[in-house]
Amino acid sequence: MKKVVVIGGVAAGLKSAAKVRREDPEAQITVFEKGSLISYGACGMPYYVGGLVADVNEFMKTPAGAMRNPGFFKNVKDIDVRIRTLVTAIDRAAKTVTVKNLETNEETAVPYDKLVIATGASPVRPPLPGIELGGIHQFWHPDDAVAVRSGIDAGRIKSAVVIGAGLVGMEMAEAFKTRGVDVTVIEMQERVFPAFLDVEIAGSVAKYATENGIKLLLGEKVERFNGEGTVREVVTDKRVIPADIVVLSIGVRPNTELAKAAGLAIGPTGAIAVNEYMETSDPDIYAGGDCVENTNIISGKKVFAPMGSTANKHGRVIGENIGGNRVKFRGVLNTVAVKVLNLHVGKTGLTEREAKELGYQYVTAMVAGPDKPHYMPGSKPVTIKLIVEADSRKLLGAQAFGEGEVVKRIDVMAAALTMGMTIDDLFDMDLAYAPPYSSPIDNVAVAANAIMNKLEGKLKGISSLTAKEKMDEGKAIFLDVRSPEEFNQIRLANCRGVKNIPLGQLRTRLSEIGKDDEVIAFCKISLRGYEAACILEGAGFENVKVMEGGIVSWPYACEK
Amino acid sequence: MKKVVVIGGVAAGLKSAAKVRREDPEAQITVFEKGSLISYGACGMPYYVGGLVADVNEFMKTPAGAMRNPGFFKNVKDIDVRIRTLVTAIDRAAKTVTVKNLETNEETAVPYDKLVIATGASPVRPPLPGIELGGIHQFWHPDDAVAVRSGIDAGRIKSAVVIGAGLVGMEMAEAFKTRGVDVTVIEMQERVFPAFLDVEIAGSVAKYATENGIKLLLGEKVERFNGEGTVREVVTDKRVIPADIVVLSIGVRPNTELAKAAGLAIGPTGAIAVNEYMETSDPDIYAGGDCVENTNIISGKKVFAPMGSTANKHGRVIGENIGGNRVKFRGVLNTVAVKVLNLHVGKTGLTEREAKELGYQYVTAMVAGPDKPHYMPGSKPVTIKLIVEADSRKLLGAQAFGEGEVVKRIDVMAAALTMGMTIDDLFDMDLAYAPPYSSPIDNVAVAANAIMNKLEGKLKGISSLTAKEKMDEGKAIFLDVRSPEEFNQIRLANCRGVKNIPLGQLRTRLSEIGKDDEVIAFCKISLRGYEAACILEGAGFENVKVMEGGIVSWPYACEK
Ligand SMILES: Cc1cc2nc3c(=O)[nH]c(=O)nc-3n(C[C@H](O)[C@H](O)[C@H](O)COP(=O)(O)OP(=O)(O)OC[C@H]3O[C@@H](n4cnc5c(N)ncnc54)[C@H](O)[C@@H]3O)c2cc1C
Ligand SMILES: Cc1cc2nc3c(=O)[nH]c(=O)nc-3n(C[C@H](O)[C@H](O)[C@H](O)COP(=O)(O)OP(=O)(O)OC[C@H]3O[C@@H](n4cnc5c(N)ncnc54)[C@H](O)[C@@H]3O)c2cc1C
Ligand SMILES: CC(C)(COP(=O)(O)OP(=O)(O)OC[C@H]1O[C@@H](n2cnc3c(N)ncnc32)[C@H](O)[C@@H]1OP(=O)(O)O)[C@@H](O)C(=O)NCCC(=O)NCCS
Ligand SMILES: CC(C)(COP(=O)(O)OP(=O)(O)OC[C@H]1O[C@@H](n2cnc3c(N)ncnc32)[C@H](O)[C@@H]1OP(=O)(O)O)[C@@H](O)C(=O)NCCC(=O)NCCS
Ligand SMILES: [Ca+2]
Ligand SMILES: [Ca+2]
Repeated sequence: MKKVVVIGGVAAGLKSAAKVRREDPEAQITVFEKGSLISYGACGMPYYVGGLVADVNEFMKTPAGAMRNPGFFKNVKDIDVRIRTLVTAIDRAAKTVTVKNLETNEETAVPYDKLVIATGASPVRPPLPGIELGGIHQFWHPDDAVAVRSGIDAGRIKSAVVIGAGLVGMEMAEAFKTRGVDVTVIEMQERVFPAFLDVEIAGSVAKYATENGIKLLLGEKVERFNGEGTVREVVTDKRVIPADIVVLSIGVRPNTELAKAAGLAIGPTGAIAVNEYMETSDPDIYAGGDCVENTNIISGKKVFAPMGSTANKHGRVIGENIGGNRVKFRGVLNTVAVKVLNLHVGKTGLTEREAKELGYQYVTAMVAGPDKPHYMPGSKPVTIKLIVEADSRKLLGAQAFGEGEVVKRIDVMAAALTMGMTIDDLFDMDLAYAPPYSSPIDNVAVAANAIMNKLEGKLKGISSLTAKEKMDEGKAIFLDVRSPEEFNQIRLANCRGVKNIPLGQLRTRLSEIGKDDEVIAFCKISLRGYEAACILEGAGFENVKVMEGGIVSWPYACEK
Repeated sequence: MKKVVVIGGVAAGLKSAAKVRREDPEAQITVFEKGSLISYGACGMPYYVGGLVADVNEFMKTPAGAMRNPGFFKNVKDIDVRIRTLVTAIDRAAKTVTVKNLETNEETAVPYDKLVIATGASPVRPPLPGIELGGIHQFWHPDDAVAVRSGIDAGRIKSAVVIGAGLVGMEMAEAFKTRGVDVTVIEMQERVFPAFLDVEIAGSVAKYATENGIKLLLGEKVERFNGEGTVREVVTDKRVIPADIVVLSIGVRPNTELAKAAGLAIGPTGAIAVNEYMETSDPDIYAGGDCVENTNIISGKKVFAPMGSTANKHGRVIGENIGGNRVKFRGVLNTVAVKVLNLHVGKTGLTEREAKELGYQYVTAMVAGPDKPHYMPGSKPVTIKLIVEADSRKLLGAQAFGEGEVVKRIDVMAAALTMGMTIDDLFDMDLAYAPPYSSPIDNVAVAANAIMNKLEGKLKGISSLTAKEKMDEGKAIFLDVRSPEEFNQIRLANCRGVKNIPLGQLRTRLSEIGKDDEVIAFCKISLRGYEAACILEGAGFENVKVMEGGIVSWPYACEK
């Protein structure tokens, strides 16, 4: 009877344990968890704070409503889960772990045949003056969620400061905003989601957040917290912000102490090194979830990518392998999806910045369009940025945002990246088309077309960033080919050099533009901008560019 | 200056023309269309009848609101579109087409360097007695949509009969139902969507439609129409149904007369044969859209797959090639998505029936689950059926239905099929996970896991079809492992041999089941059913099966 010991009672740990049980009805499976809660879906917690989820216990329930507590694991899965039990050491020679009952402080040695380390990650807590004040929360455990929500429910919280504009930070900003709390997000870097968005996309997301009532302070550094007992103010290098509550979300670090102390290999990212079977440097010890590092399958590089999805997959693979099979985990794409109010944001594969750092020769295109035919109610824009290797025409990465159906496209491109698709494959794919779901040529295929056009010199793009520089220099003609009605409704703000010639009139009004003028053509999404450029180039104009993404993707101000 | 002539002024024709223009600013491009409307999105018409779209002209407008009429094509794209102009013959030797002005009946010969045949398809009109009566509509052209809708708007239509339970038929059933019209769909075959759904999925879709007020008469044949001037009754081989209106949607046939008369090759499906460059047997003549046949990239077989998405892609490829490039169109997956009220239905690749006919050795799995965590508002079920080649573990096809996010999964599987993914790749894919969008292990990956489990003998599935036979025989134990509360709420109707043991009690109540009993375990989605089977098998029970898809995918009656 195989003895399987698991350290950590959440996603990777319990998934491993559950899968071992299905593989091996005889195994003796014990899970140690130092906390008193297990098997919780932490990812849902922002929606509890935001009020969409009524009860924090939902995160520990099965879809059928059963609480996943130790009794559940015993009855359903014949797994012993010991809560409030800290594993303090691993003795690889003796094949035991030392566990400490946190109620009694008793220590015991527990033998294992196979050990699973699933200790997760812990939020970074910066050693700033005042960090010990009350009301400064990390947001990682259900207890944190309950503390934050009860404060709001009690009406005690009028203004909140979130530190860090990453996934948890922006989800919490949404939650506060939804609950009517005045919220400010402070981010040291110059953009939101600095870990996974390129500058121009991050700019659009930040614009959306700001316009919808989330205050963003980018490129700003928190220096201290003021208050007596409880936090009252956050002091940055630029200002003082009143705060009834502070949420820290500046990242997490893998919990590797046990593994390190046991002499297991730690990888270049600082997380536990595992091979493709999820084995550590000791073949009797597996590790998975937030405490291990992953391989990015595009770059081949080791990455720290602590995700609940990955943790669960690790767990299944570990369970298979402990069960006597030989199953590999291939790696990750650092795929991300996140909702910010009604904006959907996603990314898979490499960012442009990463592609550049890794030395790829690449092209990018940013393409906006409706997510389904404009005549269908609920049609909303989606902007996709593709990063493609120039020679091989292979997709390297994609980012997308918009109020439309973004994540479907991210998932399709994750599938594409998994298999090394080229842009030609992206266009060929027979994606489902019916008006409730998409346009006849899906946004992904249009984005692939734009890259093809760029590679063949048919589309000369200019990013919003470069276009803004040109605008400020005041030398280029900004050729807005929308209708006068559209132009009156909304325009690029303070656009020096703007000229509004509707596309349908362009062929007869060519004389209004000089053949040597630098022309930047655009429209709402820059489809007409592209057609305008085709017309101008066909007529011999030599210096015409299309502003990629159009007005809907413009990260700077517009005027009405 | 290249002369390009296009026959047909809708998707494939105008897309070809538009792309030629972008490739070649000099070309002289003429499009002939026998009707008076061009460039319409016919796919949206059911939503016009249903009332979601207010104005039929929306289908001819760009997202920016410009009408795509001949003036638009002239001004924006420098393309001559001649409406009410029928092409009556192609003279390949002379490289001319004969066109007839339907206003004046004048005929002229028009020369071409490159010709595009984009004549589309036409709805089948069965030669039944009474077919000439008023109120019997095909539903293919905006005029049909206007006729049907104005009848409803005028309050003249209380009951409608739709003939054919395919895409257009079921979308029209939804439209009638939405408008409060009593609607009956008559289908000759025994199931809805006979062209692309396997029996058990079609059964679930039919159940949903029926429960939501669409009357279905399956396996029933229309014999005649009664009425005076206008249709009043539809007579089938089984009954007489009163009808104020009839919509015919029993399929379409490619318009190949011109091509045939010109001696161009016709393929095995009866549609125009083209190579991967979309060239007909005459290299100066291209053809695309509903009038040509496609290659299914999984089976390699020729198929007739008239879709608006494909027509547009054909058009772009034709435009590229006429423009002097050499671009291939790889083929289709016969992907389909369709909405029936709030049920989403999709399919890509081969059905089980097709896989069987083609001689594949395959396994299938049907897996239900919530489309995102149960605690998120709006979480709804999705059922996925995978068909996988046993040896290679490659995906052959997928079907899905549910009120949850179905089409995202279909698109991901279309991407997977495009690249020949195995089930191992399907699990590995790093799909985006955040609670608003999916569960940590996405439905697609769970479906892949189920197939793995079946291939390795860990999951012994039984389809709802076979389970129903067993139920009627009365020999098997139907082990429903849901909670008593769930069991009280809804159950399989008239389930002989049902036994309700909640999963959490199963390990202690094993003695209630005989070791040799044939056990069919299930729950709402059959996840707990699978766990129950693991427990029973672990305890030495030998004849245990899991009812795939669970209660949410049960195509037969349930009782409450
Ligand atoms: C607010 C929030 C939102 C998130 N959103 C997403 C999202 O949208 N998508 C996504 O993919 N991921 C998301 N995540 C991340 C996801 O929750 C984690 O990736 C996942 O929980 C990792 O699971 P794990 O089992 O590896 O580690 P953890 O969940 O951290 O569990 C590790 C457990 O091990 C225990 N432990 C550690 N050391 C010991 C020891 N020595 N002895 C005993 N017990 C020990 C800990 O107490 C802990 O309970 C989110 C996280 C948060 C907090
Ligand atoms: C109600 C409905 C719903 C649909 N839903 C979907 C869907 O959800 N998804 C999907 O992918 N597809 C859908 N389709 C199918 C889609 O509309 C067609 O695939 C598409 O229109 C085909 O385009 P085409 O250009 O090949 O042919 P057509 O649109 O048929 O256009 C061909 C044109 O050629 C003209 N023509 C023919 N012969 C001559 C001649 N000799 N001289 C001059 N002109 C000629 C015809 O008058 C016609 O206007 C739907 C169709 C309908 C009717
Ligand atoms: C739930 C948890 C205990 C894992 O337990 P589990 O039994 O493996 O998980 P599930 O209940 O989802 O069951 C999954 C099994 O059922 C199978 N299954 C799922 N749906 C099925 C269906 N409809 N039909 C047949 N089988 C099905 C799966 O394939 C899997 O079996 P396999 O691994 O043997 O292939 C663990 O993931 C956990 O604690 N999660 C909560 C925390 C968390 O995930 N946090 C991070 C994200 S917020
Ligand atoms: C609309 C129609 C005339 C085709 O004209 P078109 O000019 O090719 O189509 P669009 O206006 O969508 O423009 C597409 C072009 O803009 C490009 N484009 C689209 N969005 C863009 C963006 N945001 N930025 C840059 N380029 C963009 C595309 O890549 C494509 O160019 P390419 O083919 O050179 O690569 C033809 O498809 C039609 O008549 N459709 C209506 C009928 C129909 O489709 N029915 C069936 C379905 S219901
Ligand atoms: Ca095994
Ligand atoms: Ca060219």
